[in-house]
Amino acid sequence: MLFDSLAVVGVGLIGGSVGLAAKARSAARRVVGIGRNPETLERAQALGAIDEFTTDPAVGVRSAEVVVFCSPVDLIARQAREAAAYAMPGALFTDAGSTKGTIVRALDGKLPDHVRFVGAHPLAGSEKQGVEYASADLLDGRVCVITPTANTDPRAVDRAVRFWQALGCEVKQLTPEEHDLALATTSHLPHMLAALSAGQLPTKWRPFAATGFRDTTRVAAGDPKLWNAIVRENAAALSLALEHFDERLQELRKAILNQDDDAVTDILTAGKRGRDALGS
Amino acid sequence: MLFDSLAVVGVGLIGGSVGLAAKARSAARRVVGIGRNPETLERAQALGAIDEFTTDPAVGVRSAEVVVFCSPVDLIARQAREAAAYAMPGALFTDAGSTKGTIVRALDGKLPDHVRFVGAHPLAGSEKQGVEYASADLLDGRVCVITPTANTDPRAVDRAVRFWQALGCEVKQLTPEEHDLALATTSHLPHMLAALSAGQLPTKWRPFAATGFRDTTRVAAGDPKLWNAIVRENAAALSLALEHFDERLQELRKAILNQDDDAVTDILTAGKRGRDALGS
Repeated sequence: MLFDSLAVVGVGLIGGSVGLAAKARSAARRVVGIGRNPETLERAQALGAIDEFTTDPAVGVRSAEVVVFCSPVDLIARQAREAAAYAMPGALFTDAGSTKGTIVRALDGKLPDHVRFVGAHPLAGSEKQGVEYASADLLDGRVCVITPTANTDPRAVDRAVRFWQALGCEVKQLTPEEHDLALATTSHLPHMLAALSAGQLPTKWRPFAATGFRDTTRVAAGDPKLWNAIVRENAAALSLALEHFDERLQELRKAILNQDDDAVTDILTAGKRGRDALGS
Repeated sequence: MLFDSLAVVGVGLIGGSVGLAAKARSAARRVVGIGRNPETLERAQALGAIDEFTTDPAVGVRSAEVVVFCSPVDLIARQAREAAAYAMPGALFTDAGSTKGTIVRALDGKLPDHVRFVGAHPLAGSEKQGVEYASADLLDGRVCVITPTANTDPRAVDRAVRFWQALGCEVKQLTPEEHDLALATTSHLPHMLAALSAGQLPTKWRPFAATGFRDTTRVAAGDPKLWNAIVRENAAALSLALEHFDERLQELRKAILNQDDDAVTDILTAGKRGRDALGS
């Protein structure tokens, strides 16, 4: 066992998968679920994602070596600050939030000395929500970005790396700002495009939406509330990504209007190269 | 057997799947492949997609009750006009082109009297190309849009409906113009967004492109040449779809800039509703 006790705050799709992976891979002997809704926590326990649960963070974190916050991004900083007072000396706090700048700035150097925070974002998820969709494999082979800063204790970074690796992740390190710029382009922008695209499809044309439309818009089924929080937390980087996208969109519109086959083909070819490079 | 002899012009992913489905479902006793490249046609024959092949359309179509053009959209009208001279009396010509207006306008009332053309577009495909990826199931349960006009012989429409149904398709009827407007929104616009998105991903950020990015950009791996032809043939409707998309994009950018949570949530909620309505 890498860790004796792990606390998971927010036991949904990601938190449940963290718990299941921790158990399946013997990364933690005991997993405590912390949440607001006892029914959700009971379901998580029944599914084996957590061994026990509490709705009281003070109780849940007090004997946890690692506390991982898997709540919506706009709750993580506050929850971590509140839980810190009850955490045991040397506890590692980490998270699974899709944005990092706001969270890290709110916690970096602002937690009591006995607690270490290392921001993290495992790049796994689904448009589906809830612990029912959690799986021990969700994190397997996925990149987990950790975002320590100059203030972060290197030993805590090592522990965070080992923790996420123990769940099956390939750990990569970025600054919080790099993370937010990269994810604005790789995740938040595509989500916005999908939402715009799915949201403007007239009802009468639904029968004519085939696999291409379904693939390109699948993420739009994600929870608007969760995503609104991500948009708000990463507004600056997302705005930049949208601005760059918009520039390219205007080039494409002009190329089509001007019947400029070369320009259209260039855009399509760049798209194919970029996509082919990712594999299937 | 619904038809004795079927000719497939262009035996790639779609043409090959038409042939395989026609054989598997006993829609045609004999399938002739017509193409330019004997090696491709040999592979198609080896895979069972066609019974025999020729590179000479005059030979290939002369005893075919149904000729289905599965070539790139910018070749279909010319190929159909050329083949018509050699077709047997009463032959049904149909196609699988992703655009309909240009093709139908080029053929409607412009073929010799002994040939009937009914435009069609089975909404099936893949970013993959070539007869190697063809399958007898590709068309199964998929919508096939047929686009007859006021000039189209109703008996030919009936035969076209029966032909595409025999391959497993659910046939729906639109005007060529409606088809092009609908598909601009359900297929061509998403392809453009995917190409722009995949094409602007910096190399260094590739490791941070997870399933969301992969799903939303998968179609961008399609052949730029095929897609450039689709863009050209459907430039008017696609420009309109891009214009509407752009308006919504500017609303989103403004909402994010103004930190207008309600407006962002509205856009995300409309996207979720639209996507949920399509099912998985």
